[in-house]
Amino acid sequence: MRNLIDILDLSVEEIDELISVANDIIADPVKYSESCKGKILATLFFEPSTRTRLSFEAAMLNLGGSVLGFSEAGSSSTAKGESVADTIRTVNCYADIIAMRHPKEGAPIVASKASHIPIINAGDGGHFHPTQTLTDLLTISRHKGRLNDLTIGLCGDLKFGRTVHSLIAAFARYSGIKFVLISPEELRVPEYVKTETLDKKGIPYREVKTLEEAMPELDILYMTRIQRERFADPAEYERLKNSFVLDLEKLEHAKKDLCIMHPLPRVNEISTKVDSDPRACYFDQALCGKYIRMALILKLLAETPVPCSLDEHEEELVNKVFCDNPRCITSVEQEIDHIFHYTDKENGVCRCAYCEAQTKI
Amino acid sequence: MRNLIDILDLSVEEIDELISVANDIIADPVKYSESCKGKILATLFFEPSTRTRLSFEAAMLNLGGSVLGFSEAGSSSTAKGESVADTIRTVNCYADIIAMRHPKEGAPIVASKASHIPIINAGDGGHFHPTQTLTDLLTISRHKGRLNDLTIGLCGDLKFGRTVHSLIAAFARYSGIKFVLISPEELRVPEYVKTETLDKKGIPYREVKTLEEAMPELDILYMTRIQRERFADPAEYERLKNSFVLDLEKLEHAKKDLCIMHPLPRVNEISTKVDSDPRACYFDQALCGKYIRMALILKLLAETPVPCSLDEHEEELVNKVFCDNPRCITSVEQEIDHIFHYTDKENGVCRCAYCEAQTKI
Amino acid sequence: MRNLIDILDLSVEEIDELISVANDIIADPVKYSESCKGKILATLFFEPSTRTRLSFEAAMLNLGGSVLGFSEAGSSSTAKGESVADTIRTVNCYADIIAMRHPKEGAPIVASKASHIPIINAGDGGHFHPTQTLTDLLTISRHKGRLNDLTIGLCGDLKFGRTVHSLIAAFARYSGIKFVLISPEELRVPEYVKTETLDKKGIPYREVKTLEEAMPELDILYMTRIQRERFADPAEYERLKNSFVLDLEKLEHAKKDLCIMHPLPRVNEISTKVDSDPRACYFDQALCGKYIRMALILKLLAETPVPCSLDEHEEELVNKVFCDNPRCITSVEQEIDHIFHYTDKENGVCRCAYCEAQTKI
Repeated sequence: MRNLIDILDLSVEEIDELISVANDIIADPVKYSESCKGKILATLFFEPSTRTRLSFEAAMLNLGGSVLGFSEAGSSSTAKGESVADTIRTVNCYADIIAMRHPKEGAPIVASKASHIPIINAGDGGHFHPTQTLTDLLTISRHKGRLNDLTIGLCGDLKFGRTVHSLIAAFARYSGIKFVLISPEELRVPEYVKTETLDKKGIPYREVKTLEEAMPELDILYMTRIQRERFADPAEYERLKNSFVLDLEKLEHAKKDLCIMHPLPRVNEISTKVDSDPRACYFDQALCGKYIRMALILKLLAETPVPCSLDEHEEELVNKVFCDNPRCITSVEQEIDHIFHYTDKENGVCRCAYCEAQTKI
Repeated sequence: MRNLIDILDLSVEEIDELISVANDIIADPVKYSESCKGKILATLFFEPSTRTRLSFEAAMLNLGGSVLGFSEAGSSSTAKGESVADTIRTVNCYADIIAMRHPKEGAPIVASKASHIPIINAGDGGHFHPTQTLTDLLTISRHKGRLNDLTIGLCGDLKFGRTVHSLIAAFARYSGIKFVLISPEELRVPEYVKTETLDKKGIPYREVKTLEEAMPELDILYMTRIQRERFADPAEYERLKNSFVLDLEKLEHAKKDLCIMHPLPRVNEISTKVDSDPRACYFDQALCGKYIRMALILKLLAETPVPCSLDEHEEELVNKVFCDNPRCITSVEQEIDHIFHYTDKENGVCRCAYCEAQTKI
Repeated sequence: MRNLIDILDLSVEEIDELISVANDIIADPVKYSESCKGKILATLFFEPSTRTRLSFEAAMLNLGGSVLGFSEAGSSSTAKGESVADTIRTVNCYADIIAMRHPKEGAPIVASKASHIPIINAGDGGHFHPTQTLTDLLTISRHKGRLNDLTIGLCGDLKFGRTVHSLIAAFARYSGIKFVLISPEELRVPEYVKTETLDKKGIPYREVKTLEEAMPELDILYMTRIQRERFADPAEYERLKNSFVLDLEKLEHAKKDLCIMHPLPRVNEISTKVDSDPRACYFDQALCGKYIRMALILKLLAETPVPCSLDEHEEELVNKVFCDNPRCITSVEQEIDHIFHYTDKENGVCRCAYCEAQTKI
């Protein structure tokens, strides 16, 4: 494999291997401290994200490598109208591996088509963030000793929460998984996630409206932030906001070995009083993030480069259907082919190859 | 000692030691060029300051270490509402030592409570800037061969000048020090500095309104910039501004071995014609800044980490009095305890533990 | 030589030598991978330019050196009113070599006067960009095997195009050069370039209005972008813009070994369909840019520093004539001497030493 765009680009075996290498690095960091000597990671952050960027930079420095890049688009050639493809072709001259974050969905796919060096998607709009999911998997693996037979509570914004959708997709491949989906009515997991992942794979789940009713059965509690802007009615936000805040009181009936997680940054959805509870795993998550990124960089740099191409699909619609999602990279990238793949040919249902927006022809 | 928040965190002996190590580095930089190999300094600049940031980065690179961080808050998680404490806990996963600059007073104290790695205060609002003071002390030590028996002229904005207050506090611990305070009426040294430091320690000083009358007796002349915004009446600024500008003419009766200093950047308060005068020490100051920061990083990394806590005080008021200083970190940090210490219990006078704003209960 | 401000600071022999070293680095990069160990490059970008900055950073890292700096002026001391000269004097304490980009013409000359370490001009306003020209020369040398006996087509904005003027100046020193100048009427090469370089050196050239008529004879085609803002009449821009866009159709009658170049970023002036044509050299140009910068850094660091001074001219007018070019560094730098050199003393014609704006006294 050459790029990491979506967590599902990695097989279950490959994820096991990355977790194994990460654990080895944690056990003996000195052994890896020169592994990437002479190599350069380019952190191309077209949209700022200090935590993710610093995690990647620390990972590469801890491997003995170097880093260059930019931390926001204002100061990059993008402001001059340069395409993502051209930026990537140029950076191919300066680095050995790229970690990129872009506000438009599908931008890393465009990048991977233009690149001879590995692309790691560090977040594309509200679409994918595979290294966050790898971080979550390593954290759970270390705290629980396994990735199967777990009851996982997902709490907060399950409608727009990118990390939540990715975690569901990742865990759908393990056995004995049960989800408890804890959110306001308005922010429930979207239908297509239920249809295409949960129901399709026969994964049991239930939807509840309060943390308290879910708490006693959870092995993992994954908290996410609910933003005021997600509510059509601000009064509804005000009414609901505290129901999805975790505090010591709500933990009263939780399992003794519950693993409490949060992708961070947290604002108020976990009270700071929870921080000293031994079940709080969210800062350990940040540390795991550095180690799994180290393992990922090692893996991608070790692989022989292959010519880039989009996955082959039996039938590709090229410039026959046009994506109208304003968040898709096709809305801004010049001279880009609009590519759709059929998901249901009989009914003419197809998805944009970049952002996965679905349409019917 | 584990953190450097205020120059008075260091004893006179510790400062001597840092000066000694800095001089050793200047004499033999190659000896130290791998001292911090494999170590990472995080420069967290929530407010920009190129000079200070580059000085720290050069220091760490010259020690064979690496650097990561951010240079302004806009692109950091702060914009998303993350607390300083959480940012620090996360960066603890990525680095071995932190240098932070923050616009709010007391922010480094919050950081030190959340951190297991050393915190160096690179400036908190108009409050402290201890590495500038260390820089000043090293410069004077190298040019004068001593830190006692000196007549020190402080010129310019003595009311808001953070580096001036810190220098007074630092020099108050040496013998034979005399201050000549040269400023407009409106920008004189604040009463509390006179009361709590100068008078308390019996340090002679006099206040004058012109550079000329002070010049002949000075061993050190420390220039600071007077900003238009500090004057209630703009006409007053116009009337005064040139009185506090140093030029060759004003140096006519200065001692031959006068040491002229300025924390930089300078705008017009020292004429460029003074630059080639052998008494101009301000660019040498910039060089000293790098070396003393190298010595400081070495010292802090060598010490065994201790659990963080605020200094113990006999009586701490926790969440009984609330700080109303809008420049204090307590005005923005969520779920932070408001802590006050008595300075005069009989009269109910106490100070905010973070920003030192005084109040009466 | 100690600084690189203008391509003509380098002799033809020095350029040959840089090209030779660059080729050696390309052939054996490992040999150079520790050449600058322990050295620091400061990238001082008072105006953003990601491509150029990353190219310099990759160059220094590939030499085993380190990098520090800033990527835009907002976060630097410039915002506080610090002069370029003072910034440079300070950075002299932190680095061994400086690459600077500044929006004001002549700023690197001010920098070189204040610096004891080499200054590389990474672009000053619309004035010079010598490392771009070195990049172009290396690219042509590698693709054509020579820098003489070439018919060079320059297409697009020849009036404001800094890289075009520099390339003309550089190639004027080689034999057998012919230029074909392809541009809209409004954006033709300025008269002074024709007079002072082309005519003066007897270099044949012709001006045409379409790419098609020039194409068959060209050995090199150097494309530049035409910006709407350069046209007084927007309708004129609309009328013309596609005439100067390169596509496969226009390449129909081009030589088989034509070398197509562009300084990048490109927006639409070269169709992406040209990218896969073997004659497209513009991404190879980006790679050459890194290598020639590596050769340049090695050369400048190897030379013994000499005290800085402006070139000596027989007659220098100091503070007698004042530059009124708002784009010149003299418009913002405090306490700077205005210096003019005669180009035609009889007629009282002289040029600003910084920005070269011509005036008559």
